[in-house]
Amino acid sequence: MISVPADPTGRFSEAWRQCVGTGRVELALRRDYQDSLSLLQREIGFRLIRGHGLLSDGMGVYRPYEHEGAHRVHHSFTYVDQVLDAYLETGIRPFLELGFMPAALASGEQTVFWWRGNVTPPRSPREWADLVRATLIHLIDRYGLDEVRTWPVEVWNEPNLRDFWQDADETAYHRLYEITAHTVKEVDAGLQVGGPAISPGADDWLDRFAEFTERRDVPVDFVSKHAYTSGPAQHVPFGVHQALAPASDLLDQFATPRERLKSTALARLPLHITEFNSSYRPDNPIHDTAFHAAYLAPVLAHGGDLVDSFSYWTFSDMFEEAGVPTALFHGGFGLLTHRQVKKPTYHLYAFMARMGPDLLARGDDHLVTRHADGRIAVLAWAPVDPTGQTPGPGRHALRMSLPVAAREVFVRRSTVDENHGNAYTTWRHMGSPRSPRLEQLDILHEAAEPARSHRRLTVQEGRAGLDLTLARHEITLVELTPVADETPPWWDEQRLLGRSAP
Amino acid sequence: MISVPADPTGRFSEAWRQCVGTGRVELALRRDYQDSLSLLQREIGFRLIRGHGLLSDGMGVYRPYEHEGAHRVHHSFTYVDQVLDAYLETGIRPFLELGFMPAALASGEQTVFWWRGNVTPPRSPREWADLVRATLIHLIDRYGLDEVRTWPVEVWNEPNLRDFWQDADETAYHRLYEITAHTVKEVDAGLQVGGPAISPGADDWLDRFAEFTERRDVPVDFVSKHAYTSGPAQHVPFGVHQALAPASDLLDQFATPRERLKSTALARLPLHITEFNSSYRPDNPIHDTAFHAAYLAPVLAHGGDLVDSFSYWTFSDMFEEAGVPTALFHGGFGLLTHRQVKKPTYHLYAFMARMGPDLLARGDDHLVTRHADGRIAVLAWAPVDPTGQTPGPGRHALRMSLPVAAREVFVRRSTVDENHGNAYTTWRHMGSPRSPRLEQLDILHEAAEPARSHRRLTVQEGRAGLDLTLARHEITLVELTPVADETPPWWDEQRLLGRSAP
Amino acid sequence: MISVPADPTGRFSEAWRQCVGTGRVELALRRDYQDSLSLLQREIGFRLIRGHGLLSDGMGVYRPYEHEGAHRVHHSFTYVDQVLDAYLETGIRPFLELGFMPAALASGEQTVFWWRGNVTPPRSPREWADLVRATLIHLIDRYGLDEVRTWPVEVWNEPNLRDFWQDADETAYHRLYEITAHTVKEVDAGLQVGGPAISPGADDWLDRFAEFTERRDVPVDFVSKHAYTSGPAQHVPFGVHQALAPASDLLDQFATPRERLKSTALARLPLHITEFNSSYRPDNPIHDTAFHAAYLAPVLAHGGDLVDSFSYWTFSDMFEEAGVPTALFHGGFGLLTHRQVKKPTYHLYAFMARMGPDLLARGDDHLVTRHADGRIAVLAWAPVDPTGQTPGPGRHALRMSLPVAAREVFVRRSTVDENHGNAYTTWRHMGSPRSPRLEQLDILHEAAEPARSHRRLTVQEGRAGLDLTLARHEITLVELTPVADETPPWWDEQRLLGRSAP
Amino acid sequence: MISVPADPTGRFSEAWRQCVGTGRVELALRRDYQDSLSLLQREIGFRLIRGHGLLSDGMGVYRPYEHEGAHRVHHSFTYVDQVLDAYLETGIRPFLELGFMPAALASGEQTVFWWRGNVTPPRSPREWADLVRATLIHLIDRYGLDEVRTWPVEVWNEPNLRDFWQDADETAYHRLYEITAHTVKEVDAGLQVGGPAISPGADDWLDRFAEFTERRDVPVDFVSKHAYTSGPAQHVPFGVHQALAPASDLLDQFATPRERLKSTALARLPLHITEFNSSYRPDNPIHDTAFHAAYLAPVLAHGGDLVDSFSYWTFSDMFEEAGVPTALFHGGFGLLTHRQVKKPTYHLYAFMARMGPDLLARGDDHLVTRHADGRIAVLAWAPVDPTGQTPGPGRHALRMSLPVAAREVFVRRSTVDENHGNAYTTWRHMGSPRSPRLEQLDILHEAAEPARSHRRLTVQEGRAGLDLTLARHEITLVELTPVADETPPWWDEQRLLGRSAP
Repeated sequence: MISVPADPTGRFSEAWRQCVGTGRVELALRRDYQDSLSLLQREIGFRLIRGHGLLSDGMGVYRPYEHEGAHRVHHSFTYVDQVLDAYLETGIRPFLELGFMPAALASGEQTVFWWRGNVTPPRSPREWADLVRATLIHLIDRYGLDEVRTWPVEVWNEPNLRDFWQDADETAYHRLYEITAHTVKEVDAGLQVGGPAISPGADDWLDRFAEFTERRDVPVDFVSKHAYTSGPAQHVPFGVHQALAPASDLLDQFATPRERLKSTALARLPLHITEFNSSYRPDNPIHDTAFHAAYLAPVLAHGGDLVDSFSYWTFSDMFEEAGVPTALFHGGFGLLTHRQVKKPTYHLYAFMARMGPDLLARGDDHLVTRHADGRIAVLAWAPVDPTGQTPGPGRHALRMSLPVAAREVFVRRSTVDENHGNAYTTWRHMGSPRSPRLEQLDILHEAAEPARSHRRLTVQEGRAGLDLTLARHEITLVELTPVADETPPWWDEQRLLGRSAP
Repeated sequence: MISVPADPTGRFSEAWRQCVGTGRVELALRRDYQDSLSLLQREIGFRLIRGHGLLSDGMGVYRPYEHEGAHRVHHSFTYVDQVLDAYLETGIRPFLELGFMPAALASGEQTVFWWRGNVTPPRSPREWADLVRATLIHLIDRYGLDEVRTWPVEVWNEPNLRDFWQDADETAYHRLYEITAHTVKEVDAGLQVGGPAISPGADDWLDRFAEFTERRDVPVDFVSKHAYTSGPAQHVPFGVHQALAPASDLLDQFATPRERLKSTALARLPLHITEFNSSYRPDNPIHDTAFHAAYLAPVLAHGGDLVDSFSYWTFSDMFEEAGVPTALFHGGFGLLTHRQVKKPTYHLYAFMARMGPDLLARGDDHLVTRHADGRIAVLAWAPVDPTGQTPGPGRHALRMSLPVAAREVFVRRSTVDENHGNAYTTWRHMGSPRSPRLEQLDILHEAAEPARSHRRLTVQEGRAGLDLTLARHEITLVELTPVADETPPWWDEQRLLGRSAP
Repeated sequence: MISVPADPTGRFSEAWRQCVGTGRVELALRRDYQDSLSLLQREIGFRLIRGHGLLSDGMGVYRPYEHEGAHRVHHSFTYVDQVLDAYLETGIRPFLELGFMPAALASGEQTVFWWRGNVTPPRSPREWADLVRATLIHLIDRYGLDEVRTWPVEVWNEPNLRDFWQDADETAYHRLYEITAHTVKEVDAGLQVGGPAISPGADDWLDRFAEFTERRDVPVDFVSKHAYTSGPAQHVPFGVHQALAPASDLLDQFATPRERLKSTALARLPLHITEFNSSYRPDNPIHDTAFHAAYLAPVLAHGGDLVDSFSYWTFSDMFEEAGVPTALFHGGFGLLTHRQVKKPTYHLYAFMARMGPDLLARGDDHLVTRHADGRIAVLAWAPVDPTGQTPGPGRHALRMSLPVAAREVFVRRSTVDENHGNAYTTWRHMGSPRSPRLEQLDILHEAAEPARSHRRLTVQEGRAGLDLTLARHEITLVELTPVADETPPWWDEQRLLGRSAP
Repeated sequence: MISVPADPTGRFSEAWRQCVGTGRVELALRRDYQDSLSLLQREIGFRLIRGHGLLSDGMGVYRPYEHEGAHRVHHSFTYVDQVLDAYLETGIRPFLELGFMPAALASGEQTVFWWRGNVTPPRSPREWADLVRATLIHLIDRYGLDEVRTWPVEVWNEPNLRDFWQDADETAYHRLYEITAHTVKEVDAGLQVGGPAISPGADDWLDRFAEFTERRDVPVDFVSKHAYTSGPAQHVPFGVHQALAPASDLLDQFATPRERLKSTALARLPLHITEFNSSYRPDNPIHDTAFHAAYLAPVLAHGGDLVDSFSYWTFSDMFEEAGVPTALFHGGFGLLTHRQVKKPTYHLYAFMARMGPDLLARGDDHLVTRHADGRIAVLAWAPVDPTGQTPGPGRHALRMSLPVAAREVFVRRSTVDENHGNAYTTWRHMGSPRSPRLEQLDILHEAAEPARSHRRLTVQEGRAGLDLTLARHEITLVELTPVADETPPWWDEQRLLGRSAP
């Protein structure tokens, strides 16, 4: 029996909703992407969005030309503006990741991903600085300085990996960071710049990043890194299977930078996990499952104690790093599939968005919060086995005693498990249609909604007792609202036909 | 075990969707009404809509004035056009009921309803004819003759009741019918005119209507009457309780006119039940319940064998005959409450709208149809006790063997009972809030959706076996679609984390 | 030549947009009304809306009933909530006018208007107070105290007229005000209550209202009155013609209360003109004309110097005090006709909504303001002859020198006159169709848009010269925006085909 | 004086709206594209849409993989379905152009355009046939055979040009056509297949295409070619200038195939101009001008006499063959810019969409049609000088006598010229902002609307006289509707204030 105290133990952090990841920003031009983002913002509401490729060729920004015999560069923002207008229209702001390299400015030809982002250093640092400068000046001109100061600027992505930065050349990254950070600050000292956006397992880069920036007096406003927990990949066509480390491993990855940097000049800076997920593969079917929501629930419940933001990679399956998806469910990162079918992990975020600001209790399988109006929101989740050795427990019970200042509460429970709020299961029943017809999509949308139940509960001595039994891989949201009964005195429910006999 | 034949026994009649009732047509100017109608038409799709008061003062049609010393009448269609434009915009057409009497054209002051419809004969039959003629000419001018010929014209409402027609004066009604029918036909012989729109228990009026119209050679294109099954009213403030006759009594009421008129000139005319419901009271809470859906299910399944249309009275709780409703759930006729909360009977109609054109089987508790693409739609319902003596059975089981030309079927079940698809029950849990807040309305909308489940069923020897257990007052829709399995050969579901152990 | 100074002379008051009038609040349930209000709020943006009949029978608030032998009253807010939800959804708040009397609470049978608002005192002052109290408590419960404190509460409407208050009984009004004001303050001392909402020509009521409330220590938070300028009515069927006093007479009517009350306890209170217009008749065609916009332009430009708000009566032709309108253009008060056709006076308000906060210059025919970003907005209007003796001047010229901190300005001019932005003129050309068909409505919507022209103007020595010639009854908006020319150096417009020859 | 006869000379062909061009079909995933297409279909309504790249890598259709040691190909339609669903949603159908070559199926590496469409023959004709077959079978499965039979299938694009087909190898094209056409017909004999989609100046390919297909008995259901009139390009950065041949040259290009093929087996087949425009360059500013609309007007008026369809290349500036556009107006082909600003040529099409089915008169500067309801629609245009030698005439006058069966007509004139309906001119006044801010876009949308004027004209002896004076590069639409005057007898317009003095 969990006895939840009536007095809050503190404010519940909103770090979980500070940022969300996206496929390359060019994809933001697409309608499916925008439809998904609108839905996401209406029902969850993230503050920032971060993706690759802002400066890649598909965005058409860096445009060399020749005129009267001279070589010049035009910086063009046709698509950048369409993307950012769309973001702001849905109430989300960009976490600006500067990269990758425009082909015409690149020093080499190495690319990453199906869509071929160039990952080589600029052939001209001056022209890179011009590009950064022109971009920021344009953004300030169009969106206003106050607005753009709220958009963090991150320099490159995972430079510690050879796939993302030629030769994983740390010195070259430091040079890129230095020129970029100075350029940002020259445009406006109030803009926030940071890095090094490293992938997991490379925290030693943080030490040297701290040392380098301090020694050279390079501006740093925040520190960023990524976190993933997947093991070795076993490939099948258009897909992959991987075991996972326990979810606590993600929290460990969140925690290390502060410890590591505590005696450096970066010690007190905001720390952003600018990407996290279980598997780093966009074709691992685990992303589509209820298991995944239950696996990540404790990370969302506890992560805000460790970092200033942790950004789920990514909000939508409109994502092409490994090519165009070949089926509706294909193991994409998305909280939403193409066509806006919600996955269980979407609901985890939607449930989080209904938590209140006061933290009442928290544990391995639950989170209890309260809203200003007295409403209590409980998130509970079943334990999972990430090793694949067992299917995990088939049932998981919790009992809680909740403090309520009323005689009765209305209880709304929202359930996601293997058979509820789970379009993937229904899609399998349908025969795994790769490209579902419109009438099948209607059914998938319907199947993707959580099961809901509603009842009334009596409060005794200021306490409501809540007995929850969770099914395998279930996440559940329970909301308790005090009842003000308006039933008129003359009402006799038993007089309704079909109620109990006279 | 119901063994459903593979060959259809005939076409399933769409008489159930030919027409639906509405509160007085002036209410069609309201947004809540139009929002409800749009939803209704999107999800169900009726062909015609019928309500009172087209010519009543609130519509502002009959407008006497004085000019240069002469008394004249202007016929004004400002609101008529707004209403009809709104109807056509949602794909529904008017079943024109001519009435009630404009106060300035009335011979007396008797009114009916809170909104005071004048129910006295015209003081000038000539001016009444002018009004009818001007109205129809205007409609043809605005909407086209081909269109208006599809709009039946019914003369008055329930003239056999003193509340609706002064003194229930049958001779006066015949006079009104005669002048009106001739006027309609003068405008265009292709317009359809009919009556006498009588209330239950007055079928003798039909005999005399047939005799009168034949004798005087008065045009009649259809015959209309109403059907209700409620017993004596027990009043509470803002409400009433009544026992009901069995649902079969409605079917009996549908059946009598054809029998009665079989040797008259009206024998082969279309027969329209222009109003039907259980209780004729707009404040009987039975209308809000799952009981009501289960009670009416056999009427919708069988009624089309007896009549050309039977029109549910009414689609929305936006209805003011007994005054402005005092609570969201107040026993109104509506399939939808104010604010578009769906009642169980709404779902009965929505389920009917998913039936196919081929009738495979039908019984006391089920209806089985098939679509052209092979999809089978089954509607099943639990028996109810309309007397109030018992609550009705708590469980009801059906077993069916269904003919399927595939090896597997995808099964989608939609359930409405006391605890699912039942916003009334949730509203009671909430404390019966008379005027729910927006966040409460969100929950009621959610609670009003049927429970859905999805699974896959194996077919053996061309037969799928369906075992259904219905809860108290349940109506259930089961849809079976052949599965074309696209699962790729390399897929092994067991390799997903959280599936069975290795 | 008007030489506009570069430094503002002050802030330009937004009193003109503090409030707008509406037909009885029950009409807010209608879709046409809500469509008009949405448009209005999107393009103009008023803060408050005031109309009659909040407590009249059509709203269904006061509901007596009998239970167990006792007479009781239920206060029901079904429609009140629908109306207020709709208001808040469009960003407007209610200016609550308490009235008229529910029939069941009235002491007499006298009614006003086609829709029959009861204008007699309550038969029970205690029950009236209960009604007021229950209403305010409900509103606070639903919308929150902070919100409701921003909704002024006005007691009754034009009690000085026999049509609106039985016998224009001043003592009875004072009694009503006293009990109402005390009840309001008992609910919450922060609510704002005021009156006496008198019609023009009765300012002596203000003296006695001040005297009475001071003597009896009755709370008053604001003072309200109405202003109209029309002369005697000449009737035609469904219409009326009237000469008008000059527009300055409206400003005089605004000005008198402060002068009159300056030595009373009410001296420093906010002063609200809770209704104003030219004619007080809802069937005077002058409301539909360009004349009317030009007539009222100086009132909007200057009125904010005199009062805290002045509320145009009314925003929409959805209005039934004289019955249901018989034609699209019928002389209604509305800024918008049914079906959202904009009248010239709508554009006057839309032009006002584009004025800036800094007042640069103002005169008999112009108003010049500046926005924070340097954009200058000029409103100019032609003089009119309100006597009907002459058609007014056919042309009116203005020359201005405007201060601009740029080398060039982009000039956008929006024109409304007899032939532009004037759907009434087009409707006349069409043959005055009373109930236009949908394709005619499309053309009327198109004709209702102002003519727009755009050009570029060179600035010399910090000054742009603006020569305006206004047509008869023209109002014109001129907006000047500094140009940042991005034409690339290689561009030669003359090389376009169809430009001047080589 | 053009005396227009009362009796039609024939039906006016709708060939002009049979088809419209688009940038590569992958762009159809974008929101801006879909917003433009929705607008286009709402206001104009084309039947078919044709673009490149259906099978190119960006669509992700051809997906080789390895499984259990074998090389296989998966055909994936994730994006194809998203595109076609979007098309059908707006009421337009695809004109399927089969191309370009998936990189993994290509025999070489040559690409065309910034977006790199591979233009080499398939390395395996069998796999190409598999790809075509799988695509058509999938489309039939998803959209139905009846639907897909209305979608013409064209084999490749401009194979006569080395840029579009490696070496412009005619024999290789014939082989590709042969295998493709047979594959199409194997899927269903009712599908329509055709080619050779040649560019201008290569009509000799038609002779050999006829000869080859007849000799080898290869199915051909239609013949297609392209038409353009631009001369040599003079380059500026991100743009080009070109003189044009007269518009009649386009009509000549339309006319030649029928003549050429008249004695071949292809003689009676439908002839589709699957692309036409003035300049074939997506960066020629002429596309943005009023000149362009006036230049093309006679082509739209007369083209339907010569061919079955002629498809404007292209409907939107969302087009990337020469890279991402660097400014809102950049000389793109689009009828609409990004962000849905209408160009003059858009209005030419919108005016065409208001022509009636009966052709009354047609000439060098006018087209006169009548609708079934008697409404007359006149399109008139000013002559232009396409050589660039002169700006063309500054004024152009037409006088017409029109047959009208009424005493008066309502006249609506819609004008597009250098200063009206011309956002390009306004954009130049604004300073040519490359990426206009939202408030600038509002003004451009407003400036893009045609000027409208409305008046009433008296008819004498069944004739209305229309005097039109066109400005430079004007196109004008005049619509005449018989007036039914409903002005009431008592109405005296002169009594309105502001009309003439008494």
